[in-house]
Amino acid sequence: MDNFFEIKNIDKNTDARNGLLKTLHGNIKTPVYMPVGTKATVKAIDHTYLYSMGSEIILGNLYHLYLQPGIELLKKAGGLHNFMNWKKSILTDSGGFQVFSLKGMRKINESGVEFRSVIDGSLHFFSPSDVIKFQAQIGSDIIMVLDECIPYTRDIKITSDAARRTLDWAQISLKTRDMLNSERDPGKKLRVFGIIQGGFIKDVRKFCAESISGMDFDGIAVGGLSVGEDRQLTMEILAHTASNTDRSKPLYFMGLGDPAGILDAIYYGVDMFDCVMPTRISRMGSAFTNEGKINIKNKKYSNDFHPLDGKCSCHTCKNFSRAYIKHLYKSREILASMLLTIHNLQFMFDLVEKCRKEIENNSFARFREEFKSIYEENHCKFS
Amino acid sequence: MDNFFEIKNIDKNTDARNGLLKTLHGNIKTPVYMPVGTKATVKAIDHTYLYSMGSEIILGNLYHLYLQPGIELLKKAGGLHNFMNWKKSILTDSGGFQVFSLKGMRKINESGVEFRSVIDGSLHFFSPSDVIKFQAQIGSDIIMVLDECIPYTRDIKITSDAARRTLDWAQISLKTRDMLNSERDPGKKLRVFGIIQGGFIKDVRKFCAESISGMDFDGIAVGGLSVGEDRQLTMEILAHTASNTDRSKPLYFMGLGDPAGILDAIYYGVDMFDCVMPTRISRMGSAFTNEGKINIKNKKYSNDFHPLDGKCSCHTCKNFSRAYIKHLYKSREILASMLLTIHNLQFMFDLVEKCRKEIENNSFARFREEFKSIYEENHCKFS
Repeated sequence: MDNFFEIKNIDKNTDARNGLLKTLHGNIKTPVYMPVGTKATVKAIDHTYLYSMGSEIILGNLYHLYLQPGIELLKKAGGLHNFMNWKKSILTDSGGFQVFSLKGMRKINESGVEFRSVIDGSLHFFSPSDVIKFQAQIGSDIIMVLDECIPYTRDIKITSDAARRTLDWAQISLKTRDMLNSERDPGKKLRVFGIIQGGFIKDVRKFCAESISGMDFDGIAVGGLSVGEDRQLTMEILAHTASNTDRSKPLYFMGLGDPAGILDAIYYGVDMFDCVMPTRISRMGSAFTNEGKINIKNKKYSNDFHPLDGKCSCHTCKNFSRAYIKHLYKSREILASMLLTIHNLQFMFDLVEKCRKEIENNSFARFREEFKSIYEENHCKFS
Repeated sequence: MDNFFEIKNIDKNTDARNGLLKTLHGNIKTPVYMPVGTKATVKAIDHTYLYSMGSEIILGNLYHLYLQPGIELLKKAGGLHNFMNWKKSILTDSGGFQVFSLKGMRKINESGVEFRSVIDGSLHFFSPSDVIKFQAQIGSDIIMVLDECIPYTRDIKITSDAARRTLDWAQISLKTRDMLNSERDPGKKLRVFGIIQGGFIKDVRKFCAESISGMDFDGIAVGGLSVGEDRQLTMEILAHTASNTDRSKPLYFMGLGDPAGILDAIYYGVDMFDCVMPTRISRMGSAFTNEGKINIKNKKYSNDFHPLDGKCSCHTCKNFSRAYIKHLYKSREILASMLLTIHNLQFMFDLVEKCRKEIENNSFARFREEFKSIYEENHCKFS
């Protein structure tokens, strides 16, 4: 392992830790929340504005980008960073999750997955090797392997078949990475993360965690959670998975992004998060606050001239009231989504920054309890 | 006339002129393009961003604001400026145009207009005096009278009936303004603009222009043009109207906002413009450029890594390519509307700023010819 990831300090009372990820586009303090920019844009925000909000890395999605605008165009543009003019880091998901969600529109075999475009119905094929190559071609800073993500099930055969295939593909992915790296400048090595599947069966999870840990990945992701199961089960499987994983590598929980969930995952040692929730709820009129999630559609906000969150110092909270944002939302004005997106993303950046400070002070456990007790109590009361 | 409007210089070869409008929220250089913020937001742009783009005044619309969020709420918020947190000037239209567009949903009589809400069907009534009071209550810097705006017609009776009613209402509006001003601090006088109607019949237009000019208004607007007629006719009637108007007062052409049209109107001495076009075409994928209007949907822009307009220095043109914006538009991403709105508004601000410089140098006539010849030639070629 070279200096791609450094652990700076570990909280004395939990597995929470502060680290530093180093990519060709900058250093990223962990724990980190990564906004989702599926189609080369974080929805409803000018992503150049994210610099001033403290965002060091965003997500892209190979599956979506492959279909539109396409790999060839992204290559012509000089890569995804150039195309969208984002100067910091980009992690791209392989699109495994998206492809496997296309029920009836895809076929899996040992060599990969065949799928139809949701745009024009055309037929395409992704092999584990293809997705590494495509992500390398578009200039991704952190590349995810192709994995098989299954819906929630307790079926052992379905779970272990998908897990085994994911592990086979992981080996192929590493070979592809090494082959591509052999032709690259040593200072510009591709960074590829393996993904732990294994569903909700602890033995399978453990086997996957140990297998992926035994391979030469640059980082490790936990996939196949947050697929509709109960939150308590998510965290039970996460804790079990994390405890069987090589802890010297960065750990990324794919698709988790609610404030309380992030605190739980950090507690178990997760370093990286992504989730569409902060941007998606913005377009539906909701806002995270330190006192729980609120929905601006609620009648009582019509006359409420306070900011969304009195403790927040984001552009939206400094400039606009709940009453105004409610009016915009009710009038179906785009500015409602824009202002809520700014607030909800800033809330996430501030939350993980606060976590990093609490970890440094060995006070993360107490902070987590306090935040959750206020957040979740009011969450039930308000939303 | 006090120092509300000052004429700074008049172009030697045309009626174009530079002036300064002074409101309680700042000084506004004219000619000025005013972005339309109908419902307390300029669509798809964070209006606080408009400060840095050079916008000194925006529009609001009483009719829309009266229905949602309502006058009472705006009063509670401390006025429209406070509600939307816009620190510069606001001109509010009375909503005459909107009400009279509600065919079958409104009844006009001498005392005003009864109309149904497009939101919930409820019944409302605006008298000429009401609309002045409402606009004063929400803190408008420039208040428009209630007028009767008719669709395109050559019918003398329809035209002169609407004109006569508009003139009667203008008298009532002035009485209301004076009554309200008598109770206000002399430094905070309401500013009310009269509106010249008279359709497309020159005698009626002349009569209206002279009548409104003879009243003690703070400014004069030309209404009832740009209602679907041929552009040459618009300009013929405008020239005729302007030549019969008191030229010591600011002249506002309501609802004109395409680049070439603005140059023509400035030529005839118009000082103020508003139009939804720059923001509306943004949400439909179009962009003004110095070489004509382009539509980003056009296939050739897929591979075009140039900015929307090579001569433009707006945020969008400094940071993003046509190919990227096309991708966003095709993917139905909100950012497409956001980036195009920034560009198209900046284009308008830059255009009127350029006009002000050319007027100062007595070179406006040549500039207008040059701009129009390039813009209109390519407009036909590209769009």
